[in-house]
Amino acid sequence: MRTPTTSRRQFLQATGLTVAATSLAGVRARAQPRLPGPPEKKLGFAIVGLGSLSINQILPAFAHCRHARVTALVSGDAAKAKTLATAYGVPASGLYSYDTYDRLKDNPDVDIVYVVLPNSMHPEYTVRAHTAGKHVLCEKPMANTPQECETMIAAATAAGKKLMIGYRLRYEPYNMAMIRMAREQEFGKPKVILCEAGFSIGDPKQWRLNKQLAGGGSLMDIGIYALNAARYLSGEEPVAINAFSYTTPGDVRFADGVEETINFQLRFPSGILANCVSSYGVGLNRFRVHAEKAAFQLEPALSYSDLRMQVIRGGTVELRSLPERNQFALEMDHMAECVKGNTEPRTPGEEGLKDLRAMMAIYEAARTGKTVTLNG
Amino acid sequence: MRTPTTSRRQFLQATGLTVAATSLAGVRARAQPRLPGPPEKKLGFAIVGLGSLSINQILPAFAHCRHARVTALVSGDAAKAKTLATAYGVPASGLYSYDTYDRLKDNPDVDIVYVVLPNSMHPEYTVRAHTAGKHVLCEKPMANTPQECETMIAAATAAGKKLMIGYRLRYEPYNMAMIRMAREQEFGKPKVILCEAGFSIGDPKQWRLNKQLAGGGSLMDIGIYALNAARYLSGEEPVAINAFSYTTPGDVRFADGVEETINFQLRFPSGILANCVSSYGVGLNRFRVHAEKAAFQLEPALSYSDLRMQVIRGGTVELRSLPERNQFALEMDHMAECVKGNTEPRTPGEEGLKDLRAMMAIYEAARTGKTVTLNG
Repeated sequence: MRTPTTSRRQFLQATGLTVAATSLAGVRARAQPRLPGPPEKKLGFAIVGLGSLSINQILPAFAHCRHARVTALVSGDAAKAKTLATAYGVPASGLYSYDTYDRLKDNPDVDIVYVVLPNSMHPEYTVRAHTAGKHVLCEKPMANTPQECETMIAAATAAGKKLMIGYRLRYEPYNMAMIRMAREQEFGKPKVILCEAGFSIGDPKQWRLNKQLAGGGSLMDIGIYALNAARYLSGEEPVAINAFSYTTPGDVRFADGVEETINFQLRFPSGILANCVSSYGVGLNRFRVHAEKAAFQLEPALSYSDLRMQVIRGGTVELRSLPERNQFALEMDHMAECVKGNTEPRTPGEEGLKDLRAMMAIYEAARTGKTVTLNG
Repeated sequence: MRTPTTSRRQFLQATGLTVAATSLAGVRARAQPRLPGPPEKKLGFAIVGLGSLSINQILPAFAHCRHARVTALVSGDAAKAKTLATAYGVPASGLYSYDTYDRLKDNPDVDIVYVVLPNSMHPEYTVRAHTAGKHVLCEKPMANTPQECETMIAAATAAGKKLMIGYRLRYEPYNMAMIRMAREQEFGKPKVILCEAGFSIGDPKQWRLNKQLAGGGSLMDIGIYALNAARYLSGEEPVAINAFSYTTPGDVRFADGVEETINFQLRFPSGILANCVSSYGVGLNRFRVHAEKAAFQLEPALSYSDLRMQVIRGGTVELRSLPERNQFALEMDHMAECVKGNTEPRTPGEEGLKDLRAMMAIYEAARTGKTVTLNG
């Protein structure tokens, strides 16, 4: 594609910036059209873990990135890694196994390590990447316990490197618009928030259904979207939590003791109350805010694309459309820009820690049948 | 409408039950075309309490009734009663004050007394109507305490008269369709139910905001729809309840101590979990069932008209339309048919009692911060 060059020449002609030669020096200086500066350097990402999220979402998203490119892959499956490296232009020198992972420190083309492993592996691979002198973008949930989150945050601080958690919806235009509508009180003060996230999970052998690897059931994997949304839509931290959990007896998918469905309620300091649902048994995909004058919602709210916004006032429903953007590209570009500009990511390790603390409280409330209070 | 007679004759002809005349009596019988019988007698209703529900919904609904007509009005405002009596053809002999209420027993044109008074007055006026030998249709909530409900049920039994509670949505086609879709598992087993009912309440001086008259806040008045829907959509009784309540400090509407918003969670014996919201602060008008293969919902779910049904599968939304019917006419006709046929109403006093018990448990859960268990 030569379009940019053509356009540039056309631009110069149209604005009269091409002129006649008048001297040798002038000829030389002017005969050479002013060249653009080097393209802004894209930061190099190592993708750690080549499961479906990496293959279907993250690697294709680099085509839409302005500040990020993929320069390394880490996998236990060398053949898979090689195939993907060829497809995405990753050099052979950028291929790593888990045994050679720490050698990332010697690869100057890797600025940021994106940890896309099963949940229980997040702490180790995040800390090792920081130890290797790299910045880290880590998938959510950040870890299986708040203690591990604290260890990860401390390691990042000690290394003087960034730590961001992959809350993609915090970079997605519809969810950002919902936050603005709530915060700016477009329809008055928000009072009730309803967030539901769930799907009917398939293959019983996947790591998400292994309690040791996943740290829990639907809440850790998908319900975290509902929790996080209730927090970002309210703009507050929960101070009290109720919960009920249910898992279908005998369902082979939940044989390892991970919960199927967990319904939780949050109380926020301003008085906003949230009702949330997390499920591996049914499809749930909606965030809604009820404010004094109207309700506004996304449904779908957390799909990778094709989100839809509705404003509901009395019996009328108004649709609002925004341009579609690649969520993972926005997320990775944000991380790259934070590294370039040395700014704090919008969703740092502390954000992941807050969700972990709330999730532990949700499990405790469901287990004890008592309201669990938090410091907010 | 002569349809029933025609059908009957056609039935007789088709089955060969018409026979040739063989005598004078026979000739006379055939020469005179068979006249329709008298129109089916509509049962007479006394409307007790002429507030906005009676004026705007119940009295106009009689025009759509097949089995019910209004024959008496009871009000403390004689002028208002007279105006309405003229408009709806109620004779002067059918006008009562609260002082003359017990004389209803001498009015043979009154079969059924419809109690549309503030909640705290339901028990007294229901029991007095039963004592007067009338059947009673009583608005919801049935009373302010389960104990009063039990007294009312006992009085109806002692009188040998019907007692029905005015759960209009149990006679409304969309809600009935939702029940069928859930019970017949059109989209697989229901697992999660979400019911929300609320509105921003106006005039701070209305009886609904007087705790003694209303028995509570939004839950007693509008949240009862969400509770009742969770019960009829699951087809089960809750065995455990969590709740959070919030009332905006300083809001003059809630100065008498009635709650603004109360979010509650229900656990049902089969494992269905429900999240519900009741509010006097924001508009909420939706019942949704998440089953294994799809979600189906009404929104609006509890308006007097123009309900809308959606089936949500993945990213697709299917609308389903049903003919519009007058909810109060269906409700009053059901009551009349139960009296005529001596059958039990679909929503008897026991139904009102179950909601009262659950509402007391919701208040207790909110107050104590503990899961309240019920016998189901």
